[in-house]
Amino acid sequence: MTESDLPVVQLTPGRWGDPAQTVEVPEAALAALKHLGVRRTGVAVEAEQVVDGEAPGALVELLGVEHVKVDSDSRWAHTRGYSTPDLLRARAGDRADMPEAVLFPGSHEDVLGVLRVCSELGLAVVPYAGGTSVVGGLAPSRSFVAMDLRRLDQVDELDEISRTVRLGAGLRGTAAEAALKDEGYTLGHFPQSYEGASIGGYAATRSSGQSSAGYGRFDQMVVGVTVATPRGTVELGRAPMSAAGPDLRQLWLGSEGALGIITSVVVRIRPRPVERFFEGWRFGSFAQGLDAIRRLAQDGPLPTVLRLSDEAETAVNLADPEVLGGASGVQAIVGFEGTATAVRRAAVAEVLVDAGGEPLGEEAGETWRKGRYRAPYLRDPLLDEGALVETLETAGFWSKLPALKAAVTDALVKSLGDQGTPPLVLCHVSHVYETGASLYFTVVCAQAEDPIGQWRQAKTAASTAIAAAGGTITHHHGVGTDHRDAYAAEIGPLAIESLQAVKRVLDPNNVLSPGILLPEN
Amino acid sequence: MTESDLPVVQLTPGRWGDPAQTVEVPEAALAALKHLGVRRTGVAVEAEQVVDGEAPGALVELLGVEHVKVDSDSRWAHTRGYSTPDLLRARAGDRADMPEAVLFPGSHEDVLGVLRVCSELGLAVVPYAGGTSVVGGLAPSRSFVAMDLRRLDQVDELDEISRTVRLGAGLRGTAAEAALKDEGYTLGHFPQSYEGASIGGYAATRSSGQSSAGYGRFDQMVVGVTVATPRGTVELGRAPMSAAGPDLRQLWLGSEGALGIITSVVVRIRPRPVERFFEGWRFGSFAQGLDAIRRLAQDGPLPTVLRLSDEAETAVNLADPEVLGGASGVQAIVGFEGTATAVRRAAVAEVLVDAGGEPLGEEAGETWRKGRYRAPYLRDPLLDEGALVETLETAGFWSKLPALKAAVTDALVKSLGDQGTPPLVLCHVSHVYETGASLYFTVVCAQAEDPIGQWRQAKTAASTAIAAAGGTITHHHGVGTDHRDAYAAEIGPLAIESLQAVKRVLDPNNVLSPGILLPEN
Repeated sequence: MTESDLPVVQLTPGRWGDPAQTVEVPEAALAALKHLGVRRTGVAVEAEQVVDGEAPGALVELLGVEHVKVDSDSRWAHTRGYSTPDLLRARAGDRADMPEAVLFPGSHEDVLGVLRVCSELGLAVVPYAGGTSVVGGLAPSRSFVAMDLRRLDQVDELDEISRTVRLGAGLRGTAAEAALKDEGYTLGHFPQSYEGASIGGYAATRSSGQSSAGYGRFDQMVVGVTVATPRGTVELGRAPMSAAGPDLRQLWLGSEGALGIITSVVVRIRPRPVERFFEGWRFGSFAQGLDAIRRLAQDGPLPTVLRLSDEAETAVNLADPEVLGGASGVQAIVGFEGTATAVRRAAVAEVLVDAGGEPLGEEAGETWRKGRYRAPYLRDPLLDEGALVETLETAGFWSKLPALKAAVTDALVKSLGDQGTPPLVLCHVSHVYETGASLYFTVVCAQAEDPIGQWRQAKTAASTAIAAAGGTITHHHGVGTDHRDAYAAEIGPLAIESLQAVKRVLDPNNVLSPGILLPEN
Repeated sequence: MTESDLPVVQLTPGRWGDPAQTVEVPEAALAALKHLGVRRTGVAVEAEQVVDGEAPGALVELLGVEHVKVDSDSRWAHTRGYSTPDLLRARAGDRADMPEAVLFPGSHEDVLGVLRVCSELGLAVVPYAGGTSVVGGLAPSRSFVAMDLRRLDQVDELDEISRTVRLGAGLRGTAAEAALKDEGYTLGHFPQSYEGASIGGYAATRSSGQSSAGYGRFDQMVVGVTVATPRGTVELGRAPMSAAGPDLRQLWLGSEGALGIITSVVVRIRPRPVERFFEGWRFGSFAQGLDAIRRLAQDGPLPTVLRLSDEAETAVNLADPEVLGGASGVQAIVGFEGTATAVRRAAVAEVLVDAGGEPLGEEAGETWRKGRYRAPYLRDPLLDEGALVETLETAGFWSKLPALKAAVTDALVKSLGDQGTPPLVLCHVSHVYETGASLYFTVVCAQAEDPIGQWRQAKTAASTAIAAAGGTITHHHGVGTDHRDAYAAEIGPLAIESLQAVKRVLDPNNVLSPGILLPEN
C-alpha cells in the first residue's frame, strides 16, 4: 500500500483516526508501563447533553441552510484537535471550546462572504481543515463558528511544464495524492497526521512531512497562495522566487488563520517515484548517529527519508533487540524514493559506513515504513491503560542540539519526577537541514490525578528549557494557543506588534482566530 | 584568480567599479553600434558646486565628528546607485538625490541610536551598504542622511559544526570571501555587483548570485537576521526552519531599509570548493536550450552555474562564431564547483546531450568565468560612445517563460523603435528553480536627445508587458523607487497596506527610506 491508497479518514474527538485501524498495546509494553507506575484510571464518561446552537441568518442566507450546521453532533465533531490534553478533555466530556455553528463554504467567494458577515457581526471564525492540530489551534479565546473547508477540494491548473498544481485548502492530503497519482505525480508530503490533515492546514502551520529530506517542507513546496480576509483577497506568487520586496507568501504560510484564511495554494509537484527502498542502520550512540546524518545533510547526498532515534527510543521501538544484531546503540531509518536510487543509496551507504554505521537491512526499514502512521493510534489504548503519552518538538542549529536535547529531557524528567510520575523520554531527529535539525520527544508516564494539569506543568518546564537552550518552540506542530506565549517571547515584542498590525489591517474587528498564534492586543 | 582574491572596490558615481579595470569597446562592436544609429553625444559636464551640508548636533554627539561627514565629496560619493539613468544623471552633474550628510555608525547600538535621533527629528535615513542599487534604492522621496554601514564589517560567531557565521551588514562580499577563505569556507554568493556590493545589501534586496544553481539565493543562505529600527531591535532565527508562526526573517529580507536596517546576518557557509570546471554547450535554439536546463532544474543533477543565452545574446557574446563550431544556435554555460565533480559533470552531460546539446568545451566556459564581472565596465565606454545600454529582469513559471520573453522583447522593440532608436534586445536565463526561472534582458540602442526619458518610456513598456504576461517585476534587482508602483500593483493593495502597517509600528515617524519599496501612505 502506498500513500495515495490510504483512505480519507473522518476524525472524531477523543480518539485518533480510522476506527477500523485501532491497535492494542503489546503485552511487553504493558509490563514496561507497570514499572512506570501506570494503572488503569477508568473509562470515558458520557458528555453532557447540549442543545443545538443558532447561526446568524445572514450566514444561512449566504451559504444555504444545508451548509450551516448547528446540531450538537456537528459542533462536537469540530471541537479541538488531537493533543493529549484535547483527547483527555474529550474523554471527560468537556464541551467547552465547541463552536456555535459549523459553516461549509463552497468557494473562495463563499469564504470572503462569510468573513465579511462575521466581521460585521463581530463573530469569531476559526478555519477547520483536517482538524488535526496538536497545539490548541482550534480553540480560540471566545465563542466562535468553525469554518470547515472540505468543500474547497479542487485540484486544478495542473501545469506539467512548470510542475505545479492548484489545490484547495480543504482537500485532504490523501485525496491530493490520489488525484495526483492519476496524473503520474506526487506532492511527497507525508506528516504523521497524513490520514487526517488537509492542504490548508499544511500551509497555515508550515507542516513538515516524514520525507522532508527528499521533498522539502510544505512551505518550500508552496509557490502561490490565495487568502481570503474580511477586507478582501490577497493573491501572491507570480514566480518561484522574486526580489519584489519581502517574500510575503511566507507571511501567510504559518499564519494559522489569524491573518486570513488560505483558500488554495499552488504547489510544486514531482513525478511519482518508481522505486522505493527503506533500510535500517545502527550507530553506537546517538552522538555518533547525529554526526553521520549531519554529514549527509551538509555534504550530501540526502536520502528521501532520514531519521535517527536515540537510545531510549531505539530500545522501545525494537521489541526484538536482535534487530541491532544483539548490540546496543541506536537505530536510523534511511529511505529512498525516485528513479535510479541505487547510485544514491551506494553514496549514502559510503558516508554512513565511514561515520561508523552498520547496515541493518531492508526489514528494519520496511517495518518503520509500514508503521509510520500508527503511533497516534497507539496513544488511545495507552491512555485507556492509564498512561500519559504526549509528544513535543523543537529545532536548532547542529552545534546546539546535544545540549538542547539534554535540557529538554532533564526538564521533563524533573517536572514529572517531582510530580511522582517519573517518565520515559524518547527522542528522534526526523528533519535535517544544512545548518541544523529537529528534535522530537515522546513522553510516557503514569497519569496523575489531574493529567491535564500534570502535563501542563511538564510542558511548561520543557518549553522553558527549549528557550534557554536556544531552540525554537516548534519545528512543525505550530503555535496555536499552547505555544502562543512562548512564541511571543521567541520572536520578541516588535515582531509580535508587527503581526498584530497586519492583523488589524486585514481583520479590523478581530474575528480571525482570536487568541490563536497571537496574543490579543 | 578566484572570487576571494578580488579587491574591495571603492565605487564613485557615474562610472562602475575599479578604475584600473576600465575597458574599451571592441572595434567590431563599434561597427555594430553604428548600424543602430549610435553616435557620440559629447562628454560629461562638470557638476555644479555645492556647499557643505550640516548634520544635527545630536548625531555628531552620538557618533563623533569623524563619523559624520557633511563635505560635498562624501555626500556626492553616496549619491544614487548604478542604473544607467543614475550614471547619466551623475555624468550630467545632477546633484539632486544627494544626502545631507553621511553617517558611519560603528555598531548595532550606534545604528539604533541614529535611528532614534532621526525619528525624533523626523529626518529620513537611507542605509548605504555597497551602493550598487540599479533600481533607485538610494534615492528616497525627500531630503535625507545616508547611513554608510562599512564599519559594521564583523566576521564572527563562526560555527563549524552548524556551518554558520555572523557577517556585518557593511562587509563587502569580497571581504567576506577573503575572511572565509582563511577558515576554509565560502559563501558562494557572486552577483555581478560582487566587486562593490555588501552583505547588508544582499540581504535587504534578496540578491541572487551567478552560482545560484549550486549555492542558492542569498535569502536561502540567511538563517538569522538582526535588525535595528527606531523602536528597537528585532532578532530572528533560532533554528534553520521552524513552525513558530510565519517565517518573519522573510519579512526583513527584501525590505530594502523600509522596515528597519539589517545590521548583521547569520549565514550558512560551505567548504571551499577544491575543484572548478566551466564549459560551454550549444543548443539549436533558445527553446531547445530552455527544455534542457528545465530538465536539470526539475530532475537534476544541478551544476553550480547554469546559464542560457538566447540567439541574440549568443551572437553578440561570441565575437568568434567558430565557438559554436560554425553552426547557428545558442550558448549555455555550465559550471561545477565542489569535490568529486566528475560524477556530477558526467550526469549533467548525459541530460544535456539527450536534450540535443553539443559540448563546446572548457574554453568557452572559462571565457565566461573570467569575464563574469566585466559587463558593467563595458557600459561606461558604450555610454561614452552614445549608446544607451541598460538591463532589466523578471522571473516566472516555466510554462509562461516563452510568452514572457516575447512580450518583453516586443515591448522594448516597439517603444524604442517608436522613439526612432530601434534596439538590440539580448536575453539570458541565469537562475533556475524546479517550477520556473529568471529572464535577464540587455538592451542597446542609440541615445535619444533625452536618454533618461527615452529609457523611462521603454522601461514602462517592458514593466507593463511583464505584468500582463504574469511575470514578477524583478527577480534579483529589487524594488527601490523604479519598481515601486509596479510592485504595489503586483502584490495588491491589502499586501501593501500590511507592509505599511508594519512600517508604522517600527517607524512611527516614517524616517526609514521613505518612498523606497513602499508608496508613502
